[in-house]
Amino acid sequence: MRAAVTRTGGVEVEEVEEPVPGPGQVLVRTLACGICGSDLHAAADLRRFAGLVAEVGGPGGLDPERGVVFGHEFCAEVVEHGPCTERTIARGTRVCSMPVIVGPDGPEGIGYSNRYPGGLAERMVLQEALLLPVPDALTAEVAALTEPLAVGEHAVRLARLTGQEACVVIGCGPIGLAVVAALKARGHGPVIAADFSAPRRRLAELLGADQVVDPAAVSPYGRWDELGVPTRQADRAAVEMLGGPVRDAVIFEAVGVPGILRAIIREAPPRTRVVVVGVCMDPDEIEPFFAVTKELEVRFSFGYRREEFAATLERLGRRELPVEALVTGVVGLDGVAEAFAALGNAAQGKVLVRP
Amino acid sequence: MRAAVTRTGGVEVEEVEEPVPGPGQVLVRTLACGICGSDLHAAADLRRFAGLVAEVGGPGGLDPERGVVFGHEFCAEVVEHGPCTERTIARGTRVCSMPVIVGPDGPEGIGYSNRYPGGLAERMVLQEALLLPVPDALTAEVAALTEPLAVGEHAVRLARLTGQEACVVIGCGPIGLAVVAALKARGHGPVIAADFSAPRRRLAELLGADQVVDPAAVSPYGRWDELGVPTRQADRAAVEMLGGPVRDAVIFEAVGVPGILRAIIREAPPRTRVVVVGVCMDPDEIEPFFAVTKELEVRFSFGYRREEFAATLERLGRRELPVEALVTGVVGLDGVAEAFAALGNAAQGKVLVRP
Repeated sequence: MRAAVTRTGGVEVEEVEEPVPGPGQVLVRTLACGICGSDLHAAADLRRFAGLVAEVGGPGGLDPERGVVFGHEFCAEVVEHGPCTERTIARGTRVCSMPVIVGPDGPEGIGYSNRYPGGLAERMVLQEALLLPVPDALTAEVAALTEPLAVGEHAVRLARLTGQEACVVIGCGPIGLAVVAALKARGHGPVIAADFSAPRRRLAELLGADQVVDPAAVSPYGRWDELGVPTRQADRAAVEMLGGPVRDAVIFEAVGVPGILRAIIREAPPRTRVVVVGVCMDPDEIEPFFAVTKELEVRFSFGYRREEFAATLERLGRRELPVEALVTGVVGLDGVAEAFAALGNAAQGKVLVRP
Repeated sequence: MRAAVTRTGGVEVEEVEEPVPGPGQVLVRTLACGICGSDLHAAADLRRFAGLVAEVGGPGGLDPERGVVFGHEFCAEVVEHGPCTERTIARGTRVCSMPVIVGPDGPEGIGYSNRYPGGLAERMVLQEALLLPVPDALTAEVAALTEPLAVGEHAVRLARLTGQEACVVIGCGPIGLAVVAALKARGHGPVIAADFSAPRRRLAELLGADQVVDPAAVSPYGRWDELGVPTRQADRAAVEMLGGPVRDAVIFEAVGVPGILRAIIREAPPRTRVVVVGVCMDPDEIEPFFAVTKELEVRFSFGYRREEFAATLERLGRRELPVEALVTGVVGLDGVAEAFAALGNAAQGKVLVRP
């Protein structure tokens, strides 16, 4: 079959071996697959990425020389059931799935494994037990957004919001936008979304952000007074003494480059909860003194739980959110290399691949 | 009165102005006052410390040239009531207090303010509303441990322990030992305490640590299997699927020097909660990739709440913990400079000053 294969040298479309479903697995045809920021990070230095994955102890491992087919945000169609399957989901059904498969060495990440190609290929093997039928109302493109939107759901759950918080989302790439969407779907706010890119700020507004900020013009951390968040411990104590509810800030880091966490730690009001959902692959310097004296909580968020993934697909099925706007480009396999390059500029939302 | 005054040049005993209690304040005679690790950090570079305090927005400010009298861990005796006081606590009563006083610019930290000298002086001014009488059974020295022990209480509360966790305490200076004491007072454990210093490890054992580790010989992060904490996400998922309780790790950072947080982030098992209670005044480099993929939670802890301070003094009054052993030295004001120097070596517990 044809696949966009990433090696240390770059991405190229190649003829690769046809995947064969093992026990409990199904063969599917990829209908749409998103390109994720992590794919871009990984492609930029695949050897280093593979080293990091090995250090984290991902099963199976990732040999950068053998090549990897990215793609873990997908909608696909069932083609064939492997051995030992229950076959409750018929051939031809459109499905989403968490990008995980149980291989001989344990669970592996589809799209970050030499063994299990991801959705940037004509076909994939998925775990039958994880398949979720896609509601008819949804296009394959929107269904493929389930995965990144679930990342936002999970990050918002980790923030343990009470409804009293002012929420600031730093970065309006697909993950930041997913956080905005998850916040507004639960009625939280005010939500302030910050991004240097005007198109991305427009997407944030479309998804319900109450204010958008261009950090080149205005600090996203400069509005606490207006938002009713006390910036001095003493003011906070005064509000508490008067029995008033104290509005906390929750800041979502959805950029994933060095320096952002440091800035957040500097600028956050006391007791802010910081949820790090951007995946920064470089070391980063922070100033613990500020985090300590303000008693910050930094919660690192990764992926989602199974029920969050399912709930996200259900919510998409109810068409509660105008997420179609998130898709700012659709390409074929031959367009993947160009899309990888283009996604370096920050004007894009989500680019989908139709293999 | 006589006081140990710290300026940019060092600590010296000087004759300073007699403190005068303002409205709602009382004059007290210092009976015993601990030297805190933060005092040592601050004295080592007072100008820088003052700059950090100013950036955090502490009220009143701290002018390093004017000199500061440290000491925020104290037991004192009431000498005289200022104007507008209720006088429910009689003269001659021994008291503890949170080291906070409400001055004309708002609350200030006693011992980190030019205006309010701390306990390394013959007398101090305290806030009447914060005074807590010391139970007769306690020596002034033990009562002066209330403050650092309350720091441990607070850090443990922030860890939100369920009783299922394996707890690792990195650093057995007074704050690490306070964490050990607070954990064991609540019956938590196993508690593994790590320190390079053998005397400090012995103190940790005395306070109830279930295991002590010399990091020069054995990694404090190498015992997860033995402790029943899954180190791979997949193993964790397997235990969860079988309905078994998953034992989490909670790691307390009680060292406060660069590099420790980085090591913890590298070595922690997935989903570990990290409570940072050491106050690191230098920038520190971390590797977010590991924190993200393991979904760590990093909670920065600072001080304590009023009720935790009071509860700590009450617990001391019940003599539940052999905390006398924490006091490894007692000096007069003339011994403060030498004690500051000696505390640089890590064999000490808490050194108290009797002005």
